[in-house]
Amino acid sequence: MVARLKLTVAYDGAPFSGWQSQPNGNAIQDHLEHAFEHIFSERVGVHGAGRTDAGVHALAQVAHADLPVRRYSAERWRSALNGVLPPGIRIMRCTFVSESFHARFTAKGKVYRYRIWNGDVASPLENGRVWHVRGMLDRDALTKTAKLFVGRHDFCSFAANRGVVVTDTVRTIRRVRVQNSGPLTSIEIEGDGFLYKMVRMMVGSLVQVGLGKASADLIRACLAQNGRSFALSRTVAPAAGLFLIRVRY
Amino acid sequence: MVARLKLTVAYDGAPFSGWQSQPNGNAIQDHLEHAFEHIFSERVGVHGAGRTDAGVHALAQVAHADLPVRRYSAERWRSALNGVLPPGIRIMRCTFVSESFHARFTAKGKVYRYRIWNGDVASPLENGRVWHVRGMLDRDALTKTAKLFVGRHDFCSFAANRGVVVTDTVRTIRRVRVQNSGPLTSIEIEGDGFLYKMVRMMVGSLVQVGLGKASADLIRACLAQNGRSFALSRTVAPAAGLFLIRVRY
Repeated sequence: MVARLKLTVAYDGAPFSGWQSQPNGNAIQDHLEHAFEHIFSERVGVHGAGRTDAGVHALAQVAHADLPVRRYSAERWRSALNGVLPPGIRIMRCTFVSESFHARFTAKGKVYRYRIWNGDVASPLENGRVWHVRGMLDRDALTKTAKLFVGRHDFCSFAANRGVVVTDTVRTIRRVRVQNSGPLTSIEIEGDGFLYKMVRMMVGSLVQVGLGKASADLIRACLAQNGRSFALSRTVAPAAGLFLIRVRY
Repeated sequence: MVARLKLTVAYDGAPFSGWQSQPNGNAIQDHLEHAFEHIFSERVGVHGAGRTDAGVHALAQVAHADLPVRRYSAERWRSALNGVLPPGIRIMRCTFVSESFHARFTAKGKVYRYRIWNGDVASPLENGRVWHVRGMLDRDALTKTAKLFVGRHDFCSFAANRGVVVTDTVRTIRRVRVQNSGPLTSIEIEGDGFLYKMVRMMVGSLVQVGLGKASADLIRACLAQNGRSFALSRTVAPAAGLFLIRVRY
């Protein structure tokens, strides 16, 4: 019997090469696996709820790891891992779970937040944490259009090609919330699952609408496609503005 | 006749040596003066509303500079300066003002924000932007005690020695607002002026109260002193959590 450890992980995306293990060893997954190996002197595989691209941040990514023996308490694992991990990655919570839990396969949904700075000059404290959009954004148009995404749609027009053919591109968006505070616009999107670069393409198209370069009708048309993507929607918002804020189980 | 330029400056305090010019040339003032010299080929003095220590951030520090001629528009100065400054320093706004304006001497007040992360593990996205307090904070006690600062008091117990004897230690605090959001506590303090390290010592003593290591009565006693400081209040909150958010004129 193995001991399955559930990890809630926060990271600053900027200094790392994304979630998934890379030959350069600088992915979040690499740092976590190295931390286990450092403490345990054995290779331990770490499985994430999903990949995040280089530059994408996480407040609460979820992962699990199977340990051959239950040597330490979950609390002690957390401290030990944080003692070895680089300061840009922290284990926020750590608990032992049953083997029926799987970070990826039992996830019921995810919540992402995308942050936009709209103004001539972006605050230096927001470097790497916003998409700096200079032109005047029509926030009402952006907010109204964002609501179109809610529901069950074929998101084939909002998916980038990762060299793999994805046949099922239907996803359900449960909630979209747009909040404005000074020059900052924050878009929270909750869904049962997301295609590759889907949030960044949704936000990219919303900004096109906010800048008056695309219409809400175009988004409607894209969502009405079945399996055939519309090229016009393919503005990908930069990774820096994206935060994985919750994984639901 | 000179042209006086008012600058609203934001900076990430982490990579710099504070506001005031330093022999290492890495103070915010140094970078601004170098930027003017780079563009203008002449030395231009930059005068700030007040000093901030190394590690302290600013959303809207204010400074002015006197230019011998009005060569460019204020808008163009802003772009030109931002083109030369390091990414951690940005000129957010730039306007020509009359010579009756002086960044320091005509300032009527300042607003600071102090951010505390209370929890076992701090988010890596908050590195250098919070004071990480691990023990359980009594937020109600902290909030109630914070209100004691409002009004006109002798703040001699909340001032660090900068090697200069400050005779007038009476200041007026106009407003203190404490906001909690998850593990974050944000304390906003507005006053007509602040002594050296005053905000950090006020926050330091509030955290002592929040942790049950000092009582509100001690703060009351400190504020009732006239010119004789109380040693017990001298906990200085770290620079990283402090943000200068506004200078009022």
